[in-house]
Amino acid sequence: MVAIIMGSDSDLPVMQKAADILTDLKVPFEMTIVSAHRTPQRLFDFAAQAHTRGIRVVIAGAGGAAHLPGMVAAISPLPVIGVPVKSSNSIDGWDSILSILQMPEGVPVATVALNAARNAGILAAQMLATSDADLLQRIADFKKNLEKIVLEKAAKMDRKPG
Amino acid sequence: MVAIIMGSDSDLPVMQKAADILTDLKVPFEMTIVSAHRTPQRLFDFAAQAHTRGIRVVIAGAGGAAHLPGMVAAISPLPVIGVPVKSSNSIDGWDSILSILQMPEGVPVATVALNAARNAGILAAQMLATSDADLLQRIADFKKNLEKIVLEKAAKMDRKPG
Amino acid sequence: MVAIIMGSDSDLPVMQKAADILTDLKVPFEMTIVSAHRTPQRLFDFAAQAHTRGIRVVIAGAGGAAHLPGMVAAISPLPVIGVPVKSSNSIDGWDSILSILQMPEGVPVATVALNAARNAGILAAQMLATSDADLLQRIADFKKNLEKIVLEKAAKMDRKPG
Amino acid sequence: MVAIIMGSDSDLPVMQKAADILTDLKVPFEMTIVSAHRTPQRLFDFAAQAHTRGIRVVIAGAGGAAHLPGMVAAISPLPVIGVPVKSSNSIDGWDSILSILQMPEGVPVATVALNAARNAGILAAQMLATSDADLLQRIADFKKNLEKIVLEKAAKMDRKPG
Amino acid sequence: MVAIIMGSDSDLPVMQKAADILTDLKVPFEMTIVSAHRTPQRLFDFAAQAHTRGIRVVIAGAGGAAHLPGMVAAISPLPVIGVPVKSSNSIDGWDSILSILQMPEGVPVATVALNAARNAGILAAQMLATSDADLLQRIADFKKNLEKIVLEKAAKMDRKPG
Amino acid sequence: MVAIIMGSDSDLPVMQKAADILTDLKVPFEMTIVSAHRTPQRLFDFAAQAHTRGIRVVIAGAGGAAHLPGMVAAISPLPVIGVPVKSSNSIDGWDSILSILQMPEGVPVATVALNAARNAGILAAQMLATSDADLLQRIADFKKNLEKIVLEKAAKMDRKPG
Amino acid sequence: MVAIIMGSDSDLPVMQKAADILTDLKVPFEMTIVSAHRTPQRLFDFAAQAHTRGIRVVIAGAGGAAHLPGMVAAISPLPVIGVPVKSSNSIDGWDSILSILQMPEGVPVATVALNAARNAGILAAQMLATSDADLLQRIADFKKNLEKIVLEKAAKMDRKPG
Amino acid sequence: MVAIIMGSDSDLPVMQKAADILTDLKVPFEMTIVSAHRTPQRLFDFAAQAHTRGIRVVIAGAGGAAHLPGMVAAISPLPVIGVPVKSSNSIDGWDSILSILQMPEGVPVATVALNAARNAGILAAQMLATSDADLLQRIADFKKNLEKIVLEKAAKMDRKPG
Repeated sequence: MVAIIMGSDSDLPVMQKAADILTDLKVPFEMTIVSAHRTPQRLFDFAAQAHTRGIRVVIAGAGGAAHLPGMVAAISPLPVIGVPVKSSNSIDGWDSILSILQMPEGVPVATVALNAARNAGILAAQMLATSDADLLQRIADFKKNLEKIVLEKAAKMDRKPG
Repeated sequence: MVAIIMGSDSDLPVMQKAADILTDLKVPFEMTIVSAHRTPQRLFDFAAQAHTRGIRVVIAGAGGAAHLPGMVAAISPLPVIGVPVKSSNSIDGWDSILSILQMPEGVPVATVALNAARNAGILAAQMLATSDADLLQRIADFKKNLEKIVLEKAAKMDRKPG
Repeated sequence: MVAIIMGSDSDLPVMQKAADILTDLKVPFEMTIVSAHRTPQRLFDFAAQAHTRGIRVVIAGAGGAAHLPGMVAAISPLPVIGVPVKSSNSIDGWDSILSILQMPEGVPVATVALNAARNAGILAAQMLATSDADLLQRIADFKKNLEKIVLEKAAKMDRKPG
Repeated sequence: MVAIIMGSDSDLPVMQKAADILTDLKVPFEMTIVSAHRTPQRLFDFAAQAHTRGIRVVIAGAGGAAHLPGMVAAISPLPVIGVPVKSSNSIDGWDSILSILQMPEGVPVATVALNAARNAGILAAQMLATSDADLLQRIADFKKNLEKIVLEKAAKMDRKPG
Repeated sequence: MVAIIMGSDSDLPVMQKAADILTDLKVPFEMTIVSAHRTPQRLFDFAAQAHTRGIRVVIAGAGGAAHLPGMVAAISPLPVIGVPVKSSNSIDGWDSILSILQMPEGVPVATVALNAARNAGILAAQMLATSDADLLQRIADFKKNLEKIVLEKAAKMDRKPG
Repeated sequence: MVAIIMGSDSDLPVMQKAADILTDLKVPFEMTIVSAHRTPQRLFDFAAQAHTRGIRVVIAGAGGAAHLPGMVAAISPLPVIGVPVKSSNSIDGWDSILSILQMPEGVPVATVALNAARNAGILAAQMLATSDADLLQRIADFKKNLEKIVLEKAAKMDRKPG
Repeated sequence: MVAIIMGSDSDLPVMQKAADILTDLKVPFEMTIVSAHRTPQRLFDFAAQAHTRGIRVVIAGAGGAAHLPGMVAAISPLPVIGVPVKSSNSIDGWDSILSILQMPEGVPVATVALNAARNAGILAAQMLATSDADLLQRIADFKKNLEKIVLEKAAKMDRKPG
Repeated sequence: MVAIIMGSDSDLPVMQKAADILTDLKVPFEMTIVSAHRTPQRLFDFAAQAHTRGIRVVIAGAGGAAHLPGMVAAISPLPVIGVPVKSSNSIDGWDSILSILQMPEGVPVATVALNAARNAGILAAQMLATSDADLLQRIADFKKNLEKIVLEKAAKMDRKPG
């Protein structure tokens, strides 16, 4: 199971996209709020217990001085995917990106693009697909479909007079 | 098995650290050069075939306009970890980071910190550990050891007169 | 002939300006969608064949981690003009610019300003004009006209009381 | 008492300057290593207990994705001064600065300039001097002395022929 | 008492949040305009006299080339908290942040996040709480309440179907 | 013929690489100094006359507030390739890049990566190859050779024990 | 007399503020459009002749790759004030600032803040006031008035209950 | 007379170049240290009195959070030229540039390039030359000489085989 956590309910419009793609890919998940700065004890409990209760991948989204993904990665042995959120208090997203990405040696966070929660969901599925051939096939099919959509759009544009 | 690829042999001093930690964690790997810009056919062949020959995670390092991780992610269904390398032609690493991190919807790259190939190796192991309890334990032990080293250094500093 | 390609149909409002100026300068062109990340096979086919079917210059626009111009340049011997697009997922355009501009030794992309597809069209015409004196004259006339428009605006402002 | 903590012993050359100025200003302090990412339990214990054992101000230095100051501020009611350290894995210090400075509403960190541990020590003394007139006088004297040194240098430069 | 000053009345919507939280925490304060660049004499008089008339902490907000916090810190022995304001003439706030944060050795400014006047108020209260156990308790209660609000939101999100 | 110009003789170590690759590709060229800021008349004469004396492509390198490429493009109808040089007075190259790249509508400069004079040479050759099949073949051969070199290095790395 | 020039009539809303303050300070001026990139001959003529026809200071505003101020400074012996304009094609103003500010040794441009045409007007007046005691007095009065306005606003804010 | 001031004697190697060019151009000057942050009273006295004792232009150099030029401009009616110094505590010079350049409406600082004290000297001379035809001629001669030096270097490079 994948856990999707976020620092604030204001991150939900971004993070919901992780939930949506996991639903599409038939990957079970749970979703909740864990704030590194406002609920540090909840962060610790979540991160210390996640792998003991069936969570296999954590997706964590946060903005500004975004410490949530890195602190979960510090406490849990699970792979953590960080989603930098361009929140209202962020400086064009640079603070969110750098405080998630630039983790020290020994404690990686798998960072995706700014606001790219959908990609975080796909990445979580790819991690689980390392031992699930059916899921790997669904991911391959998903990619094939991306290609199909672009090819249709290309065909449509080609028909326009140059 | 993990595949470690890099755009140039000049990236080897950085990327070797991915190989070292995978060796420590007893995760088998292969390592080679694949250049998106100089050997595009090799890139295509590598990426199209990787999952068919037992590769389960790809670690790709590149600098400057670093297209290697993203192009492998475009072609392969496998999870791809990108290592931005601060190569000699890079602008303080910003180009490497942004061209690996900011992938479009549908095609994630799990980006780690600048030059953080060691973390890429740990992350690859964590991905495989989603279905390998022994490996997960080795990762937990590795993290426990990181803690032990810091605690020893802390004890040493505490002994110094303030 | 010039080929104008773009990573997504959402880039069309920007890229259409390349088509418009080429029409004005009477340079034939084709325009379509080629996505490096969603249609990698189409990218390869396009880039490998372009010079064999009469294309002499490629204009490629893309945003975010923009790999399309660089990958065409990697595969094709033709000159490639890159248009960094400030797409919705871009960080103020910096990612688009750096991932198009900072190509490694041996594989140049002729990069123009952010969203400057019109300039990409002019540059493509200038490249073809290296062997077409009539086209060079049309470009010189176009520049002369730019000057005329500014001179008229200057005359108008001069008439205002200071 | 002031507590000076740092994420790694490699931060000591920078952080020692906080200790030196506190010694000069006769402010008692303790100094140790607390790593947010490698010793998260130690971080929690330190932050939860600091105010119960006589610590009144915390100075925390860290580099890269620097979560130490913000996490202490999340757990402790004490004022926390953050020192962004330009460590070897930092991108010119931007990551250190932004991940310390850009804290969310409710959880401030008093951030000083890059590597400015000496200023962190002065600021800690100023905080304690809000209720210690003698210390406030020592700080005023310290500033008076800064002025004196500059005035002497100015007198020396003035004597040079222009 | 805390003094809240700002460079312009256009900073009031941001700086009012410092006043609000100080009111909530029952910390007395005064608030006025002091412009380093337009009323330099007023700046000097304010900074030279503040500690003689009962002010114990200064909160100073300014935008663009923001010299107000640093100049008060240069003249007064009191701790100065700087609030970088993203004013209309600011370049995305970078100028405000850097001209407040990057103070030279000997003259610290306790910088908070961009526009984070509320955090400046909390930090001022924390400074005064170094000698006021009741205030420290009110701050601890305030933080406990932040936690409670997040836990309620988390509970609400948990109830949503995943 | 290609003209290689640079703002200062201090740019020669960078710009020489354009000359070298043009020599390799058997493309005739001339090389000299033209400073937009110190020899503006020479700039005007050069740019106004270049196309009348057989120059077909201009490569212009400059650092800092780099106006040379853009001013030649303003005056000449020829395609201009700009090489941003990381000169001693440059801010990490950002000023050089932005003042060459961000040309207004109507006046493009084909910008290459920081210090990438070799790529400027290749790009100039590609422009001339739009009407020279032999040159296009030499460029294709050059690229094929790049691939060969990488494949040899890859083969060598593959032989190392992983 | 002061000459105010700008690269495009779209810069007029910004540059008009230079005219307004010069009017207020009773400094005669002329205002027109001179585009470095679209009317290079006009630029040359303007810059070469300005000091011969009574112009004593030039204010030049431009956006993006802003070459106008620097090129006037290259040709004319007069002091040139550069106004970086945040035009629609600018990357948050960074390109405008850097291409005006970072002039090479020997050819200064007096750069003011982004869009700060009003300050450019004041600075031009200050330059002329180096030999005009009456104008210097008007500038001193202008500054005194700035102070008065702030003091009135401060008095008004002071009257509000804290 | 021109006054050259700097925040610290560590700025002298940079600022000396202003003195040198003023000597060359036969413009009298004085040079001393005035620190905004360590000698604020000296700053006030200097700025308030400069125009009363024959100073007509002020050149002020400072690094980091560089408040010296702006504070002199706030107090004095004279034109102030700011030299951003890339001091050891500066973040690649960005803090120095932005805190000097981005002055608010009403209080300009004529900013030159990073470390460009020589250009500050030339600019000061140009300001004085607005009422001194002989000095204007010396500046024109100086520029003519710059041109001559480049033309000689160009001639030398032209003689090299291409």
